[in-house]
Amino acid sequence: MTPSARGDLFDPACPTRRLLDRIGTKWTSMTVKVLAEAAPDEVRFADLRRRVPGVSQKMLSVTLQSLVRDGLVARRVEDSVPPRVFYRLTALGTSLDSALAVVREWAEANMAAVDRANQRADG
Amino acid sequence: MTPSARGDLFDPACPTRRLLDRIGTKWTSMTVKVLAEAAPDEVRFADLRRRVPGVSQKMLSVTLQSLVRDGLVARRVEDSVPPRVFYRLTALGTSLDSALAVVREWAEANMAAVDRANQRADG
Repeated sequence: MTPSARGDLFDPACPTRRLLDRIGTKWTSMTVKVLAEAAPDEVRFADLRRRVPGVSQKMLSVTLQSLVRDGLVARRVEDSVPPRVFYRLTALGTSLDSALAVVREWAEANMAAVDRANQRADG
Repeated sequence: MTPSARGDLFDPACPTRRLLDRIGTKWTSMTVKVLAEAAPDEVRFADLRRRVPGVSQKMLSVTLQSLVRDGLVARRVEDSVPPRVFYRLTALGTSLDSALAVVREWAEANMAAVDRANQRADG
């Protein structure tokens, strides 16, 4: 892509659709929220894992690697023994959090209505 | 859930996290957008498939079934030979589209920046 180009979700060749799937998962949304709430402080891996209940070590690792590769999270390794690893949102990641917050809010506010629809459908 | 209860994404037992994964996919986002743009008209399956480039028949079927079960899309079967099936957003689905639009807009506007980060990471 050229630096100024806009993505197009409806173009099958555009990487925007893969990006949307990466940022659309519950683990991404929760991880980004925890980092946004901690900002400007960094958060260590073990703390992140504690604040994202239910996430496995493997899944949190994969989620963070993807966020770092996408330029949404910055990773800093402290030269200690053992080395300590810290994470924080970048400016780009902070802007993503604002967008994801709208969907999180929708999901939490409308969960009961969706639950009723599920019960009608299954009943 | 009780009818007035709010979901809690950070509660591992709350169905909100599974809901977030369902509504977070590119296929859901594109399908909901096409239906929102067509409203108040209904859209037939074949038309939907044409307007969501790259989606397979199976994947569009699965996506629509999930949206209907969640009360976000209404399905109407016309008693013809062969039967014709129409889809439209419910009021709940329309409110979801407004939330997903924010993330679609973020993804399209920031795709180039993410692409540059990917290149730095892989380079």
